[in-house]
Amino acid sequence: MSQFVYSFSEGNKEMKNLLGGKGANLAEMTKIGLPVPQGFTVTTEACKRYYQENGEIGPDIRKEIFSKVAELEENTGKKFGDKKNPLLVSVRSGAVFSMPGMMDTILNLGLNEETMEGLAALTENPRFACDSYRRFIQMFSDVVLEIPKAKFDAIFEGKKEEKGVKYDLGLEAEDLLDIIGKYKALVKAELGREFPRDPAEQLMEAVKAVFRSWNNERAILYRKLNNIPSDLGTAVNVQSMVFGNMGDSSGTGVAFTRSPVNGENRIFGEFLVNAQGEDVVAGIRTPQPIAEMEEAFPEVYAEFARIAGILEKHYKDMQDMEFTVERNKLYMLQTRSGKRTAAAAMKIAVDLRKEGIIDKETAVLRQEAGQLDQLLHPTFNQKKLAAARKLAKGLPASPGAATGAIYFTAEEAVAAAEQGIKAILVRQETSPEDLAGMVVAEGILTARGGMTSHAAVVARGMGKCCVAGCASIQVDEENKVMTIGKRQFHQGDFLSLDGTEGVVYQGHVATIEPELSGDFQTLMSWVDEIRTLRIRTNADNPRDAAQAIRFGAEGIGLCRTEHMFFEEERIPAVRRMILADTVEERKEALDLLMPYQKGDFKGIFEVMGERPVTIRLLDPPLHEFLPHTEEEIQELSRQIGVPAEKLSKKVAELHEFNPMLGHRGCRLCITYPEIAVMQAEAIITAAIEVNKSMGLKIVPEIMIPLVGFKAEFDYVKKLVVDTVEAVIAREKADIKYLVGTMIEVPRGALTAGEIAESAEFFSFGTNDLTQMTMGFSRDDTGKIIREYKEKGLLEGDPFQSIDQTGVGQLMEMACKAGRSTRPDLHLGICGEHGGDPASIEFCHRTGLDYVSCSPFRVPIARLAAAQAAIKNR
Amino acid sequence: MSQFVYSFSEGNKEMKNLLGGKGANLAEMTKIGLPVPQGFTVTTEACKRYYQENGEIGPDIRKEIFSKVAELEENTGKKFGDKKNPLLVSVRSGAVFSMPGMMDTILNLGLNEETMEGLAALTENPRFACDSYRRFIQMFSDVVLEIPKAKFDAIFEGKKEEKGVKYDLGLEAEDLLDIIGKYKALVKAELGREFPRDPAEQLMEAVKAVFRSWNNERAILYRKLNNIPSDLGTAVNVQSMVFGNMGDSSGTGVAFTRSPVNGENRIFGEFLVNAQGEDVVAGIRTPQPIAEMEEAFPEVYAEFARIAGILEKHYKDMQDMEFTVERNKLYMLQTRSGKRTAAAAMKIAVDLRKEGIIDKETAVLRQEAGQLDQLLHPTFNQKKLAAARKLAKGLPASPGAATGAIYFTAEEAVAAAEQGIKAILVRQETSPEDLAGMVVAEGILTARGGMTSHAAVVARGMGKCCVAGCASIQVDEENKVMTIGKRQFHQGDFLSLDGTEGVVYQGHVATIEPELSGDFQTLMSWVDEIRTLRIRTNADNPRDAAQAIRFGAEGIGLCRTEHMFFEEERIPAVRRMILADTVEERKEALDLLMPYQKGDFKGIFEVMGERPVTIRLLDPPLHEFLPHTEEEIQELSRQIGVPAEKLSKKVAELHEFNPMLGHRGCRLCITYPEIAVMQAEAIITAAIEVNKSMGLKIVPEIMIPLVGFKAEFDYVKKLVVDTVEAVIAREKADIKYLVGTMIEVPRGALTAGEIAESAEFFSFGTNDLTQMTMGFSRDDTGKIIREYKEKGLLEGDPFQSIDQTGVGQLMEMACKAGRSTRPDLHLGICGEHGGDPASIEFCHRTGLDYVSCSPFRVPIARLAAAQAAIKNR
Repeated sequence: MSQFVYSFSEGNKEMKNLLGGKGANLAEMTKIGLPVPQGFTVTTEACKRYYQENGEIGPDIRKEIFSKVAELEENTGKKFGDKKNPLLVSVRSGAVFSMPGMMDTILNLGLNEETMEGLAALTENPRFACDSYRRFIQMFSDVVLEIPKAKFDAIFEGKKEEKGVKYDLGLEAEDLLDIIGKYKALVKAELGREFPRDPAEQLMEAVKAVFRSWNNERAILYRKLNNIPSDLGTAVNVQSMVFGNMGDSSGTGVAFTRSPVNGENRIFGEFLVNAQGEDVVAGIRTPQPIAEMEEAFPEVYAEFARIAGILEKHYKDMQDMEFTVERNKLYMLQTRSGKRTAAAAMKIAVDLRKEGIIDKETAVLRQEAGQLDQLLHPTFNQKKLAAARKLAKGLPASPGAATGAIYFTAEEAVAAAEQGIKAILVRQETSPEDLAGMVVAEGILTARGGMTSHAAVVARGMGKCCVAGCASIQVDEENKVMTIGKRQFHQGDFLSLDGTEGVVYQGHVATIEPELSGDFQTLMSWVDEIRTLRIRTNADNPRDAAQAIRFGAEGIGLCRTEHMFFEEERIPAVRRMILADTVEERKEALDLLMPYQKGDFKGIFEVMGERPVTIRLLDPPLHEFLPHTEEEIQELSRQIGVPAEKLSKKVAELHEFNPMLGHRGCRLCITYPEIAVMQAEAIITAAIEVNKSMGLKIVPEIMIPLVGFKAEFDYVKKLVVDTVEAVIAREKADIKYLVGTMIEVPRGALTAGEIAESAEFFSFGTNDLTQMTMGFSRDDTGKIIREYKEKGLLEGDPFQSIDQTGVGQLMEMACKAGRSTRPDLHLGICGEHGGDPASIEFCHRTGLDYVSCSPFRVPIARLAAAQAAIKNR
Repeated sequence: MSQFVYSFSEGNKEMKNLLGGKGANLAEMTKIGLPVPQGFTVTTEACKRYYQENGEIGPDIRKEIFSKVAELEENTGKKFGDKKNPLLVSVRSGAVFSMPGMMDTILNLGLNEETMEGLAALTENPRFACDSYRRFIQMFSDVVLEIPKAKFDAIFEGKKEEKGVKYDLGLEAEDLLDIIGKYKALVKAELGREFPRDPAEQLMEAVKAVFRSWNNERAILYRKLNNIPSDLGTAVNVQSMVFGNMGDSSGTGVAFTRSPVNGENRIFGEFLVNAQGEDVVAGIRTPQPIAEMEEAFPEVYAEFARIAGILEKHYKDMQDMEFTVERNKLYMLQTRSGKRTAAAAMKIAVDLRKEGIIDKETAVLRQEAGQLDQLLHPTFNQKKLAAARKLAKGLPASPGAATGAIYFTAEEAVAAAEQGIKAILVRQETSPEDLAGMVVAEGILTARGGMTSHAAVVARGMGKCCVAGCASIQVDEENKVMTIGKRQFHQGDFLSLDGTEGVVYQGHVATIEPELSGDFQTLMSWVDEIRTLRIRTNADNPRDAAQAIRFGAEGIGLCRTEHMFFEEERIPAVRRMILADTVEERKEALDLLMPYQKGDFKGIFEVMGERPVTIRLLDPPLHEFLPHTEEEIQELSRQIGVPAEKLSKKVAELHEFNPMLGHRGCRLCITYPEIAVMQAEAIITAAIEVNKSMGLKIVPEIMIPLVGFKAEFDYVKKLVVDTVEAVIAREKADIKYLVGTMIEVPRGALTAGEIAESAEFFSFGTNDLTQMTMGFSRDDTGKIIREYKEKGLLEGDPFQSIDQTGVGQLMEMACKAGRSTRPDLHLGICGEHGGDPASIEFCHRTGLDYVSCSPFRVPIARLAAAQAAIKNR
């Protein structure tokens, strides 16, 4: 029979799946001799059994739990329910993946009237005992009995008012006893039964409540946001209590071995004297910096620093620790790898490597690719910032700059974001209920809470700018007003946040591109040594191309030509081309565009040098270039002297019911071969001219979009090749070029073997391939995808990360078939998935040669490619 | 070295690929001793060489040709260019597949001034010799030299006018000589060189012209329409001339061994005294029925009847023969299997089987499945017809009834059809240039031409109603007026045609469903013995279901439920459902719909009995049920008392950029589970009630549309199963049911193995599957597909016949994966391809259990399924 309950002394850090992260680390700390209050872990398997058995804990597991309780009683000399020396425990969840703030915790379990008396006698501190029992009833009622917390708060605050005290500490033991009596009456009124007195019953109910909380809404949402499987279950840690709230020689704290903000190698954290741990984490009281602990408790701090050093070396990573000091004795309550900003992750990974603690590969794996984005985020334009009005200062909880309109609830922030409004979420303090709003917000501002408050931890994880604990603001969530001094700010007013400095500015402040640190360059040099995938960028102009090169792009995977068509001085010619009645008229209009296009391509070639550049022929349906409203048509008619009726007729003629599946891509070049001819001529002429002027050997890659079958590709390829060869002959140039295709229509992927007979390269257009393979119009199905994710039908957004089972299957088929026809077929991806780490790993495994993404995501792609190479070695 | 030229005596009917159809049959007739003028065939391989060598005939082939000419000279005793006894030949194309009217023919080749004299002396008929030369120049100039025929006609008609004669025969030899002189002058003026005199040069130019004509526009169009590969090439038949125009003891004719109109077993054909073959085929002169030949040439006719009998038994099929009588001697010029109407094909196949000439399988294969359609076409409502005004009578060239607006050119008929107008094409006579118009027309009416004229032959092949040779109408194509007596009819006026009787009626005459003959039942009984595919129908109401059963449907493969939503008394409830603000309001509206839906399903179950019925849950996007114009919205607002702004807002909210890929199919049921619940309840309740009242064991099949992945299917399946089980429990019913899915999203096909874990059947929705796999919006890409076909990029319309390479590949994958998960998975197709013979054969090969098609196409599907079974044995 398998074991469902483990003492901390029986486990180790490798047993995370069974004991959860917290349990495994408590066991590990116990194992390496650190001061951990004793206890045991009820496993994730027990949680699964609980769900299998419809919310019951079977007698076998119950028996195991109480045999561990007995062990604990023996080791501590305390006893459950003992009036003289009662055993009190904390009950905490501990899932396999850290889920901060998601799961519920109960402290001081084991208290009732008798044990409270015992605790009072033992500690010679009746007020402490009363307060502990009061806290226990409140927590247990909230978490286990599910009675609204506000009702308890009302009793508590009422008492304070009655007594005319401002702080909790103003209440005496008798006041607390009175409160306890009222709490119990409340429980009875709510549930029709007494608050449970028996510690054994308290324990079993608490364990069940933790199991239950695995499936509470916040937990489900967090798992969805973080792609954590829903069937892992949580473990439960039962640990004998130590008290940080036993007076001024006690306290509790949270600390990191290095700074999670910038990675600096010194202990970083917060400490609260005479408090229990929840006070720190929940951000209810604003704690002191850890440096003050060093002054107040020099010996305890020295011991803590020593343990921190041991833990970091042992885990070979920066640790996030919780601890309690009970009457000058230090206890470790938790350690885990600490969440950190991208900048901190970078510095810590590079430093740990330099310190010889980890190797290059580990350093590279440590930097979460998605998080790297933060380093590339804009900061404020310093000149503009100098002119900006500083409104308030809070804690620099998560770095970066954000500007937007303020909203006071998650729902309103979501609604604003859906309308394309950049939102700043302003809250008294955030809670897991605010997650959806935090996801869409540009930045987060809270009035309360510290650097490890919910808002701060979550914002850092998201790489989102956050100013927390900004005490000088008053937030009236109900009336949607924020007050700073005498100034009032209403919903929709603009603010700017500097998360790196913790400053709030009035109005909109312009931002600028980030600069990249030396550590960044060091880590990226390791990344480039390791990765095998090439990284290209999607860029349509020399500016973006140059930016991408600075970020390490090795070529252009997708140069769209339609953006060039939209520029102001060209659009009249584009429209003339579309409105042409004859091939001759169309050619005339295209002749006007030709020099512009050539110029565009020259500019790009000049920046890119001999790096490969893939240029896609015109792709969008032509109606996109025409106006649509009656007024715009009248206006255009006046501008270009074409009768409005003719314009309207053309617009109507070009209207399509499903333009996504309409007259676009290579279909345009088949109807209007002149377009392909003009573009091919512009591309090859530009390359020849730049080769000549710069002494290069550029090999342009001409890409034909939306190909569904070989005959289509061949038709357009012939137009391109005939044109290009004529130019080469005319110019007597010595130049190579490639003609390839997008694979973005499912049929193209299905017949890739045939298409590869003619196509010299493939580039997967995974945006369209996803639309057609899944039958999801990207413009229309945002809501559906959101609904599917909420209902658990989809794990992630297939437009963000490749649907590997469906779309990926087509890609694999196409790669295999294409390469079997043409072994040296060059394969890439130019959909927006090219910048998504999971998709990049998929592309690596599938054997693509390169991924192409927006300039901004090039570093992420490089890192993700290296991580994919390491993971798939 | 391979042989490029074969004497008729060297070949046989199996050599069709090399000698073409005509050449192989001329060889076969020679082989079995029938009277065939001697000659030889230049092979299709020579044609391919001609194209490979850029339009040149190499010296080796030329040498072979002239060695065969020498052989011919020896056998006939005549000589090319001999003034006394000149050898004259016909040169005709002969492709592998019969292409009537598509290729060009030259008669009397070998004539020049000298041989004309010789011919005159030899036949003692100078007028005949002159006329032969005149015809030769005219034909050769048209076909080989490509000088417009009209210019020659003008000279000829001018002469007739000058001489004041009405008929060609009114011209004397001298007149013809004068014409010949003018013809030659015309050739010289047009080409700057003399008309070729040397018979060898004439022959080589003629052979090349035939090769060239393989790629003339008419031939290309015909091949495209009939899916004939373009690389087969044509053979050329060179045959010594016999003359049907040697006076009244001569003649020429075309005949069938049985009637190609109704299959009656007696010789059917036409004959023209003193004429050359082209006169009959081109419909220039209206010939006499063959019965008159029996009176005029009893012995020759008896001989011809004997030969016809031999040929039919030899080829085991009805033959279409061309013959010439030269001075009472019969010559066979061609035999081939005759084209026939569906009714004739049916009767001939059944009769030949009864006569013991062919077996059942051959009889089944003889009936072209696509053509069967004709038998199912409507005929006129006899009552309405009795009241209709008869305008004119022509030849009953192709049976059936048609009614529509008249158009005088192919272009206008095409334009009208594109606007959804039913068109009748009215022409003086049709030519291959009119094909596109004939394809779209409901019926064809010509003023000239016989039962074997171009219009008649092509119309019968298409199963299209045609009245030909309607001499009492005058057609002024230029002014778009048709005159009958004193009445004028203009473009757009309505006419009705009875192709079975050859009658033209004024205005619109209502039509009725066809009745099916005993032969039809006989043949279909053989079909049902042979086929293994089941045939279901797509039907949404009892009337269609009953019609389909009469046509032999074995179940319903697709019952769409949305059509039921559109009915007048229900649409208000549907709209209330869509406009509901709360689930409760939505349920209320659905409660109103529920009894209607239940009634619909009961009606269908009552008709279908225990035959399987697959009902699809609501599929189309909801905006389809709302009005869209401002006026309609105002109107609806008044009707249902909902503010117009609210309506407009909802319409805007439901608007999608690509509705094809939007909120529809199972996605609707995921957002609005109440819809699935209502429909499931209606289906199962209806089945239970009909089972009870009729004592049946109906097993309804509930189909979930647009499934892309298993989680979607499972979500909706659970709604359905929970509802159905609740009804079953409530009603204490003993009933089975199936829940399955459409496979119509590419991802659904790609993950069919997973989906089959939950789905009990698959039905391929090949309309949508084609749209998404190929990226072709059916509503938008009609033009693109037409253009692709014209440019040779697509062989056929993928919405008519399954794209087997792409879409078919997905189907095969899905069948394989689905069956490997669930070996008894039931597989069908319900896209419109289910009625297309080629697609049905594909479905048979792919292992589907059934195809489902519109009621009207059920017999075609049955026949195609049997043919597929025979071909794939």
